[in-house]
Order: sequence, then structure tokens, then C-alpha cells
Amino acid sequence: MEPRKSRRVRIGGVDMGGGAGITVQTMTRSRVEEVEGSLAEIRAAAASGADLVRLAVPNPAAAGYFGRIAARSPLPLVADTHFDWRTTLAAIREGAAKVRVNPGNMDPDGLARVAEAAGVRGIPIRVGGNSGSVRRSGEGADSPLSELLAQETLTWAARLEELGFRDTVISVKASEAAVTVRAYRLVAAQSDYPLHLGLTAAGPRESSLLKSAAAIGSLLLDGIGDSIRFSFTGDAAGEVAAGRDLLRALALRREGVEIISCPACGRSRVELPELAREAREALGHIRSPLRVAIMGCEVNGPGEAGDADLGLAPGGGAVHLFIRGRVVEKLPPDRAIARLAEEAERLGGESR
Amino acid sequence: MEPRKSRRVRIGGVDMGGGAGITVQTMTRSRVEEVEGSLAEIRAAAASGADLVRLAVPNPAAAGYFGRIAARSPLPLVADTHFDWRTTLAAIREGAAKVRVNPGNMDPDGLARVAEAAGVRGIPIRVGGNSGSVRRSGEGADSPLSELLAQETLTWAARLEELGFRDTVISVKASEAAVTVRAYRLVAAQSDYPLHLGLTAAGPRESSLLKSAAAIGSLLLDGIGDSIRFSFTGDAAGEVAAGRDLLRALALRREGVEIISCPACGRSRVELPELAREAREALGHIRSPLRVAIMGCEVNGPGEAGDADLGLAPGGGAVHLFIRGRVVEKLPPDRAIARLAEEAERLGGESR
Repeated sequence: MEPRKSRRVRIGGVDMGGGAGITVQTMTRSRVEEVEGSLAEIRAAAASGADLVRLAVPNPAAAGYFGRIAARSPLPLVADTHFDWRTTLAAIREGAAKVRVNPGNMDPDGLARVAEAAGVRGIPIRVGGNSGSVRRSGEGADSPLSELLAQETLTWAARLEELGFRDTVISVKASEAAVTVRAYRLVAAQSDYPLHLGLTAAGPRESSLLKSAAAIGSLLLDGIGDSIRFSFTGDAAGEVAAGRDLLRALALRREGVEIISCPACGRSRVELPELAREAREALGHIRSPLRVAIMGCEVNGPGEAGDADLGLAPGGGAVHLFIRGRVVEKLPPDRAIARLAEEAERLGGESR
Repeated sequence: MEPRKSRRVRIGGVDMGGGAGITVQTMTRSRVEEVEGSLAEIRAAAASGADLVRLAVPNPAAAGYFGRIAARSPLPLVADTHFDWRTTLAAIREGAAKVRVNPGNMDPDGLARVAEAAGVRGIPIRVGGNSGSVRRSGEGADSPLSELLAQETLTWAARLEELGFRDTVISVKASEAAVTVRAYRLVAAQSDYPLHLGLTAAGPRESSLLKSAAAIGSLLLDGIGDSIRFSFTGDAAGEVAAGRDLLRALALRREGVEIISCPACGRSRVELPELAREAREALGHIRSPLRVAIMGCEVNGPGEAGDADLGLAPGGGAVHLFIRGRVVEKLPPDRAIARLAEEAERLGGESR
């Protein structure tokens, strides 16, 4: 599907929206007062490929620590602020590349001050709606949660527009995948704000990985979303790895080797899981985008391997090496992985 | 979203479509000639919660082994057949509860024989289209792959209708998530056949888990799909566990404890990952559907914990135990998990 057209904002040196690549972000677990611990997490997230990192700044005093971290951070930092607009202003003064506010828990009158300060500094504001803090009173209070969440968040963005502030990013996170997807679809249909995708309170990695992949993936497959965050109860670098894995799995960010292989079924002639595992290990150093097929199956093998940049397909006691759809060599099985790696390095223009 | 209305078929004792619950299936890795190995895999899949298991039956001689396995299987078995309709007929005679054929690689003239035999036995046929074996010739050959895949598969289903056979299940699997989702949406919009969801050649678990969750999850969130299969290069029981985890994560199959927790961010007052892990362990034996919130965050905690059946929210040196939105006890931290487990057992009507 055609990607949704969103306006572009800039967060430090990172573009978001308007056709820029989809960015991956995470949030530190250390308290912001733990300057070295926070920096260690930011560096680990950067090493995992994060584009942005967010830190919770709970009060104006904490903003000073945020500033010390921002001065040494390898990545642009986002200040996550709640309740008190003075905290948001302090974080902006201390060098936040973007701030996040939550319409469900901040005094609406503070928003004008935040908009003015962010405008002067030229940084975006994320209006981050959250199902846990939607105001359930007044007109429309019995509407579905997804609609309340989308409308409350869009109302704040509209207020920012009235104040002359346009660099708004939106998120509308719920803990249920279905509510989250519906809320983002509503916002996507009614605006061109760049969208930060995620779920709130997503739980331990084992259970939230699939929920997040389904919800975020569903939106991305429909062309919706400009930045993503997986939330786990766990480490920040793991969230980043999952985010990048999802983008790669959906062919939205191509880098390194993608291995395609048949599920090893009764049709297979060889130990496919073992061959696929060996290939993954042997090609793990390659950063160029390559699609590698490890096929053991007469039914799908030839068709699938033709789509790949290169691949292996065992048959008749040998292993066939394919390059862009053509068999180039029949190899003895014990040479197959080494030759695959050589060809992958050659195609990728890389060497060990 | 409203679930798509599909017709119902019956596979052994298992209903599919027409409002029946979404089933989870997998495929054995053993060759069908390995009768004991196949049965061990089927039993492991059943223990992981599979509803159906599929076996590859590559030729008529293999159907005899399929029959020996089917006679002892705890689950209904699906015979996966390709190329030769005689193999499909043999599998039907040997007790297949459903057969799968691939329109891309079977002689169309054999289909009438298959339809007749399946009709006599009262078993469904899955017309399983596959991007790797779509016929790319004749009219429309330059259409997008998703359309070719959907149309070829629907054409076979229509031919079965002309033959008087109606118990057709459809799948349209590709290796790319976007192609797969588009193909299923096309079939869903044009028919009421029950849909078996999956991707083909999905690769090693680490990369295919997210791709499958995104593609299958996207369809399920739109109410599309009656049975699911995750395909990994790996073990069948792991595929089943992933399938059930996805259904639980999307609230499509409620059983056992779902733990909701804040990602441990800088706002947290306690070691949330540790508390969530302890809760997961302490509640792992509970089969009743319970939603448990472990919240360490003043921002989302109260709102989220109100949605859960019960939950813990630390604060002020104590841990607050919530039951259905109301704080019922303030506990010393070292008693919190044990009390949570007691209340979960009481609410679930279970004990160790």
C-alpha cells in the first residue's frame, strides 16, 4: 500500500515523516538522576541501531540531569514530561531535541508556554495520548476508547496549530492491539502529523513482542507510521533490536542478510534448520541488504530461491548454489556454507 | 472490527469458520514414513495446544504410513499433497480429516476425482495457493503477485463449487508479509471460504516470528482468518506456542494469565521487570483467563490497573493490591507476590 503522506519534522539530526525512513526508538530505564547509567543505556541503544532515545523527566529539578546527559549523548534525546508544563519548559531549556506531553494529564493552559518555547528552539512536540489517561467525561464520554483517544489527542494538536505551532508528532497508545490500531487509523485518516507507533503497558517481552509486532506491523503494512517503539518490561537495547527486526521483516528497512527458508517439513531432504542456522552465522557480518534462500523443498524451493539474491537448494547428493535465480555451482555439502559466504561477500562488496 | 462471516467446515471433531474459535495448527518435520517420530511430534504439538496437525504425503505409497499415523493420532490430521491427485485420493482413503492441494502444481483434471472422494468422505479440501508456484502465464500474468495468487486460488475453489463441492478452505501464502496480507484481503472480500492464515518459507524463528505476527496479526485484527499457522525452520510445538501466544495477545483466545506491565522506565519506583517475572512464574499454573497488571508508574498505573482483573502497584514503601479496580490491601513488598497468587487462584477458581 502507498505510504501515508505525513509532514516532516526534525529531531536533532534525525528526520521524521514526509518520506524519511521509519525510525526506531526506545526509552531508558535508569532514573534521569543516574547520569552515567542513563548514558550507558543510550550508548547500548545506539549500538543496537536506535535513532532516538527518550528519557522520563519527572520534575523541573530532574531537567538539570537531563541536560548533563544530553550534552554527552550520541543520539538526539526526547524528554518525556507529565503533569507540569514547567518540567517541559525546563527540559526544552536543557537541550531536549523533542518533548513529549500527555494531553490526559497536563494543564491545557500550560500548552501555550510549551508551544512557545518549542517554537523558539525549533523542536517538535509529541502529543502522546494514552488509553490509561483519557478523560472519560463530558460530551462523547461513552464513545469507544479508540475514538476518545484519537479525538483528545487531535484536539491538542489542533490547539497547537491555533498557537502557530506545526511540528507536532502524534501517538495514541493503548494496551490492547485492536484499540491501538483503530486509534492510529483514525488519526492517520484525519491528519498529516507524523505518527510514533507503539502500545502502552505492553508487558514482559515474551507476551508483548507478538502483540506489538501485530499492532505496529498491521499499521506499517497499511503505510501508517513514521517511528516505532516496542515496549517491553526489560532492556532498551532489546526493544531496539525488535523494532529493527520488524522493519526488516516487513522490507521497510533493508540491511544485512535476510534468510528465507522452508519450514522443515516432511518434504525436506536435508536438515534445513541446521543449514539455515549455519548460513545465518556465516553471513552475520554482512551489512549490505541481501536476501538468501535456504531451501530443502522441491515444492517451493525453485520458485522462492529465484526471488532471492542467492541461495542454496540441496538435491541429488549435492547442494545447488543459486545467484539471482540461476544455478551457478553444484557443491559438495561440506563446502556449501563457505561458498555461500564468499558469494555473499562478493555481492555485498564486503569482506571479513 | 466485526469478524468476517465465513462458512463452516468440520475437520474431524474440529470446527473451522462460521464463528467457531480460531484454531492453531502446525506441520510435522518427520518424514511420514517415520511413524513413531511423526506421532511423537503430533503428541508434542497436541500438548502445546495444537488443534490440527498437517503431514506431507509426497506419493501414494506414503499414504499407507499416513494411515497408520492417523489411526493413532490424538488430533485430526491433514494430508498435504502435491503434483499427483492419486496421492490425494490415497490420503483420503487412509483417513485424512482434510486434504490440502496446491492449484499451482496439480493437474486440474485430477481435481474432480479429489472433490468426489472428499465429498463421499465428508472432509474439507484446502486449496492452498502459494506465491512460489503461481502460474505466471496467460491473461493477467503481469498483475501483482497478490492478485494472481488470490485469483488462481479462487478459480480452483469455483471449480470445486461447479463440481458440487462446498467444504473448501483457502490459503494464499507468500513469503512477503505485504503480498500475503493483500492476497488474503482479496479472497476475504470475494468469498466466504474459511481462511487458513500463514506465510510460506518464513525462515528461522528469530526473523519469521515478527513477520508472521505482523502479517497474521494484521489480518486477525481486521476480523479475517479462521485458522493460523506460524512457520519456522524449527520445531512444530514452537510454532503452536507462537500461534496461541498471538491469539492471546490479540484477545482472540483467552486462557491463563495475561500480564500487563509498564515498560520499566525512569518513572518507575521499583524493579518492575523483576516483579513482573516473579508474577509470571507464580501465576503460570492458572488456566482461567485473568488479566494481571504489574504497574510501577504513577502516570499509567492507576488507569491501566483499573482495567485488569487484579494487579499490584507499588507506592509509598508498600505494594497496593488491586482487585477489579479497587485497592483491597496494602502489602509489605515481600508478601506481594504470594498474596497476588492467592487472589488469582481464588478469582480463577483454582488451586495448586
